[in-house]
Amino acid sequence: MTSLDRDGEVWILDLGDGDNRFDPTTVDEVGAALDQVAASEAPAALVTTASGKIWSNGLDLDHLSAAGEGWVDYVQSVQALFARLLRLPVPTVAAIQGHAFAAGAMCALAHDVRVMRADRGYICLPEVDLGMPFSDGMVALISGSLAPAALHRMAVLGERIPGPEAVALGVADAAVPLDQVRDEAVGRATALAGKAGPTLATLRRTFHGRAIDLLDPPG
Amino acid sequence: MTSLDRDGEVWILDLGDGDNRFDPTTVDEVGAALDQVAASEAPAALVTTASGKIWSNGLDLDHLSAAGEGWVDYVQSVQALFARLLRLPVPTVAAIQGHAFAAGAMCALAHDVRVMRADRGYICLPEVDLGMPFSDGMVALISGSLAPAALHRMAVLGERIPGPEAVALGVADAAVPLDQVRDEAVGRATALAGKAGPTLATLRRTFHGRAIDLLDPPG
Amino acid sequence: MTSLDRDGEVWILDLGDGDNRFDPTTVDEVGAALDQVAASEAPAALVTTASGKIWSNGLDLDHLSAAGEGWVDYVQSVQALFARLLRLPVPTVAAIQGHAFAAGAMCALAHDVRVMRADRGYICLPEVDLGMPFSDGMVALISGSLAPAALHRMAVLGERIPGPEAVALGVADAAVPLDQVRDEAVGRATALAGKAGPTLATLRRTFHGRAIDLLDPPG
Repeated sequence: MTSLDRDGEVWILDLGDGDNRFDPTTVDEVGAALDQVAASEAPAALVTTASGKIWSNGLDLDHLSAAGEGWVDYVQSVQALFARLLRLPVPTVAAIQGHAFAAGAMCALAHDVRVMRADRGYICLPEVDLGMPFSDGMVALISGSLAPAALHRMAVLGERIPGPEAVALGVADAAVPLDQVRDEAVGRATALAGKAGPTLATLRRTFHGRAIDLLDPPG
Repeated sequence: MTSLDRDGEVWILDLGDGDNRFDPTTVDEVGAALDQVAASEAPAALVTTASGKIWSNGLDLDHLSAAGEGWVDYVQSVQALFARLLRLPVPTVAAIQGHAFAAGAMCALAHDVRVMRADRGYICLPEVDLGMPFSDGMVALISGSLAPAALHRMAVLGERIPGPEAVALGVADAAVPLDQVRDEAVGRATALAGKAGPTLATLRRTFHGRAIDLLDPPG
Repeated sequence: MTSLDRDGEVWILDLGDGDNRFDPTTVDEVGAALDQVAASEAPAALVTTASGKIWSNGLDLDHLSAAGEGWVDYVQSVQALFARLLRLPVPTVAAIQGHAFAAGAMCALAHDVRVMRADRGYICLPEVDLGMPFSDGMVALISGSLAPAALHRMAVLGERIPGPEAVALGVADAAVPLDQVRDEAVGRATALAGKAGPTLATLRRTFHGRAIDLLDPPG
């Protein structure tokens, strides 16, 4: 169960207190939240967070295996959320208070800024261990977000990266104690709120346009 | 008013002591200076510096808005300077003693090495705040110079990056006290002067050829 | 004279105790070793090391200049080794106990992990000093392995990078005292051995497919 609240100029999207996978209900709720954020007047910014040990564990694998041929549409619906984050005319900050795995990590990479917990919690793309490939859109998102060394360690070797190392690798922007993750993220979002507007969306398209189009093909 | 002097094997191009925007006179002067440097015999290297608080603030916005339809040619003339820097068969070092903003920052990125002032001075691409897009050539130059994390913070979010952080992000190669910026740059240029020659230009084309062609289309 | 030994799940390929250039005999021996490693059952991993002051100095320049028109096939045979490393369904760790220059450095970049000696030894692409260009396959390998700042310093300026700086630049993963280089590499290889399998090869192709195809064109 997700929620969307407002704290001054900053929208707070809470992904929940479980393992916060992108099941179909969550996809709908997050989509509706992004609609509301996109329609808000500038200045504005978005912080995406959660409670508990997990930020998001990614795809709902139970739903995926039960979906039959519908799995393509399901994966597509999750990818479309990443594209919508990249199209949002509002700065976005992921307040990653716990683990961000697989599509959860990719969702974090689709934000402008990532604040991680310093003492625990990993960002990880475990596809090599799961025997899963990446879609073309995921490849474009990952390639556009991670420098070669970070990309190889995360996306090829599936290494679990803790917060401080994520900062050193350019995967995250800050790693702070758990009780400061949300404040740090809200502070950064507040500082960025004045940048909301169509130019922000244009610049994201300039540098991540291929990812946007592959994650959510037009037409 | 720019000047070009020689200190042993190292050419010193001084962009001035004002805000050192690339007005049409400056474009002509810098172009003539690069011609002279390109024609010099190896070993040789170029240091581009300035005095005062600003290295370069970029395009001359007054000229830009007064140029009418001539704005395209004007922007093109500035971009062509960046391409000429990338084609120069001589190592290039930017001695950034102050702010490098917008096209000033891009000019710095077109050098082989960047030395910044450690205590003050920002390198910044404020296009998101100005509501300005980047041209295709600028996008290629920026994308070829900055790793994803630095690119997002600078070119999408328009963050002002001080010297030490620029070094940490791979945006600059050194950050030193103001009174050492020029010496540090000249020292690095002297060490690189022996690399002048056609292979240097070939290797820049190998890795930055798309930027060169888009910044200064052939034909 | 190379050798291939096995230490538990980890294969140890030793490139020799000379300057370990890729002369035709070495190319054949390394190729046969990679065949054997590729055919081994998971879990498995490969450590490539050497003894003496040099890990590998790259192409055999004597053979290159004596080869006449055969130089193309010779260079191609070395490049094909890099492609085979990238196709190997087994994690690969370069234990770089000394210098890795030119094609030696490229061979190191074709491994998943690089452990360097901390106090001595450089990784270096001296092509600018040799007046040599890179082939398209080499360009793709280098561009896919190095972030822009590291790429410019190594591949354009030909800078010699010692171990600790290589780690800071994302060129290497660890720099340790000489007597720990092999143990560190074997430890990392052992930890990665469980990732051997077709998905690893698929993921390398996903992110380095262009390099693989240009280094060893199909057909």
